[in-house]
Amino acid sequence: MKNSLIYFDNAATTRVFPEVAELMYESLLNNYGNPSSIHDVGRHARVEVERARRTVAGLLNVRPGEVFFTSGGTESNNAILWACCKDLGRKHFITSRLEHPSVLQTLLALERYMGCQVGFVKTDKKGLIDLDHLEKLLKATPAAVVSLMHANNEIGNILPVNEVAALCKQYGALFHSDTVQTVGKLEIDMQQLGVDFAVVSGHKFHGPKGVGAMYIRSGSGLEAFLQGGAQERNMRAGTENVYGIVGMARALEMSCEEMTRVRESVKEIKDFLLEKLEEEIPGISFNGDARGDSLHTILNISLPLGVDADLLLPRLDMAGICISTGSACSSGSNKPSHVLTAMGIDQKIPNLRISFSRYNTLDEAKRLVEVLKEICKK
Amino acid sequence: MKNSLIYFDNAATTRVFPEVAELMYESLLNNYGNPSSIHDVGRHARVEVERARRTVAGLLNVRPGEVFFTSGGTESNNAILWACCKDLGRKHFITSRLEHPSVLQTLLALERYMGCQVGFVKTDKKGLIDLDHLEKLLKATPAAVVSLMHANNEIGNILPVNEVAALCKQYGALFHSDTVQTVGKLEIDMQQLGVDFAVVSGHKFHGPKGVGAMYIRSGSGLEAFLQGGAQERNMRAGTENVYGIVGMARALEMSCEEMTRVRESVKEIKDFLLEKLEEEIPGISFNGDARGDSLHTILNISLPLGVDADLLLPRLDMAGICISTGSACSSGSNKPSHVLTAMGIDQKIPNLRISFSRYNTLDEAKRLVEVLKEICKK
Repeated sequence: MKNSLIYFDNAATTRVFPEVAELMYESLLNNYGNPSSIHDVGRHARVEVERARRTVAGLLNVRPGEVFFTSGGTESNNAILWACCKDLGRKHFITSRLEHPSVLQTLLALERYMGCQVGFVKTDKKGLIDLDHLEKLLKATPAAVVSLMHANNEIGNILPVNEVAALCKQYGALFHSDTVQTVGKLEIDMQQLGVDFAVVSGHKFHGPKGVGAMYIRSGSGLEAFLQGGAQERNMRAGTENVYGIVGMARALEMSCEEMTRVRESVKEIKDFLLEKLEEEIPGISFNGDARGDSLHTILNISLPLGVDADLLLPRLDMAGICISTGSACSSGSNKPSHVLTAMGIDQKIPNLRISFSRYNTLDEAKRLVEVLKEICKK
Repeated sequence: MKNSLIYFDNAATTRVFPEVAELMYESLLNNYGNPSSIHDVGRHARVEVERARRTVAGLLNVRPGEVFFTSGGTESNNAILWACCKDLGRKHFITSRLEHPSVLQTLLALERYMGCQVGFVKTDKKGLIDLDHLEKLLKATPAAVVSLMHANNEIGNILPVNEVAALCKQYGALFHSDTVQTVGKLEIDMQQLGVDFAVVSGHKFHGPKGVGAMYIRSGSGLEAFLQGGAQERNMRAGTENVYGIVGMARALEMSCEEMTRVRESVKEIKDFLLEKLEEEIPGISFNGDARGDSLHTILNISLPLGVDADLLLPRLDMAGICISTGSACSSGSNKPSHVLTAMGIDQKIPNLRISFSRYNTLDEAKRLVEVLKEICKK
């Protein structure tokens, strides 16, 4: 892997903080116990896991007892939605067609196997949620579970999360939010957000892959999805991924410590691209509410008509620029983006999701503009 | 954590090979791509994941396309059993009361939520499966799924797996075996075993926690349990735990390379303890088929009547010896072992699961005998 590569695919995954890698290496070497074992070696592992839990809980402003470690965002979303059905008997779910597949596919499974019903809230061309329609749906099925993501992983739109939470409260609905893209990037105070359930994915904020967490409001009555052990206070069976948990907690801590500075520097890059791309590439358009309430780390563009979609990624790749179309979860399969489809965007016109992290520079953004200009030349 | 500790809890988890920790550190630092991204950084991650898959597949004598990476043994057991029900429509399951909780609890969930029925094959005082009764159950429900573990994680009994496989084949049943304790310790040739599904847990053979695999025989029709992405050829959603996968594959390779030598040296320790403990501690007994077809890494004992159960683990701990009672999955909760209960063993008499790895020595075993003698003194 060349060091000169420009990596603009940070919504798919991020470079691990070297300090986190080192911490995990230490833990792998010296702290191999099973946290459920009550002897010395086990207790050392337990201490690290519980310290990590307190760290994560503190950064999200929840109680340690409300944080459960999992294998990642996808498992967390699956677990919460299944539990809402099987443990609370909730049969009505309300979501949007712009959600992550780990929410949409899980809801499809709940329809198929558990007799649940899923309502889809209307969204507009910019991908914005129609709150009036959400209220209509809530009126019809008040004891629903609403699952709407905090920031969209393809277009970056930020949900008016307080308004959704207020509506859910008003109608007695539960509110689950896929917060994978925002944890570590925005200040997350779960009490202020007003959600009942939320999820964390370690590798989205320079932590390790294969580890995540769920926030489950205390007293909500959810039980385990993965069955078979008393781990995580009976909420998630399976030996804890001690090194991963330790690494994720430290990465979240580091991300939160420098959040303001990073947000400003990343926002500068996004704003630069918004301006320069529009200026230099006639016919380019920005998908989603790019100039509105949008996550600073994501910019989704459609290139002008006539650009060869099949050559776009290879040409970027040859220029040493790593970008995806749509989300990585489906990019291997080369299907059109379900998010852009739901927004009515013609995907014969090639699109790109450009996503940023603290490691990107303005110079890299300038280079991207040059390369895209070249690609878009008639 | 003191270096002088004696660690006899290797069925709970094992010390990570230093070489594996280093390999993972390298991967964490240099190979952070999302394997689903088709650009340069993503492809590098993809290459490592697929190389690991070929390694694991080769060592188990299956095709790479039959290996799916997961977060561990528990997820693998959950996923396979759920899929047998939801994707194949199998409603009858046959298991024993000695299985790991990730099998037993999952089957309970399938009863509760999916209308499945679970039959329990009889076992004797030694925990041996009654094959005649298994055949009777299979006759009654021929299209069943049989789930019987390869080696029991508490008592070490090894299943006559070929006989079970032959019966399953005869009656058209599917055969799932929880192979968590045997992969990396016994030669595993899935073709010879004759199983349809099996599972792998990285941390049981000096690999990392938080990563595992499923073997799913090709053409069996199972679909994903964790929903939401095209990863693992649509069989397991969620960004791949690249470092964990790399570490697990290397640990399995290292375990298989030295399997014969390690088995001999571990067997010597177990045989020594079988002999010495019986000699030195009157009234001690061995649970399971300890002198029969038993895994070399596990020895389960009941101490003589009169030993204070509450003081047993603390006294071992103070002597620097790490051992568990029962499995780690439930040891945190301090409940009696469901395995010993099913075998009719009185658990007012304290019991210990002593479990070994390549890192144990005969001197450590001698020390254990001394300490147990002291504890058992009237």
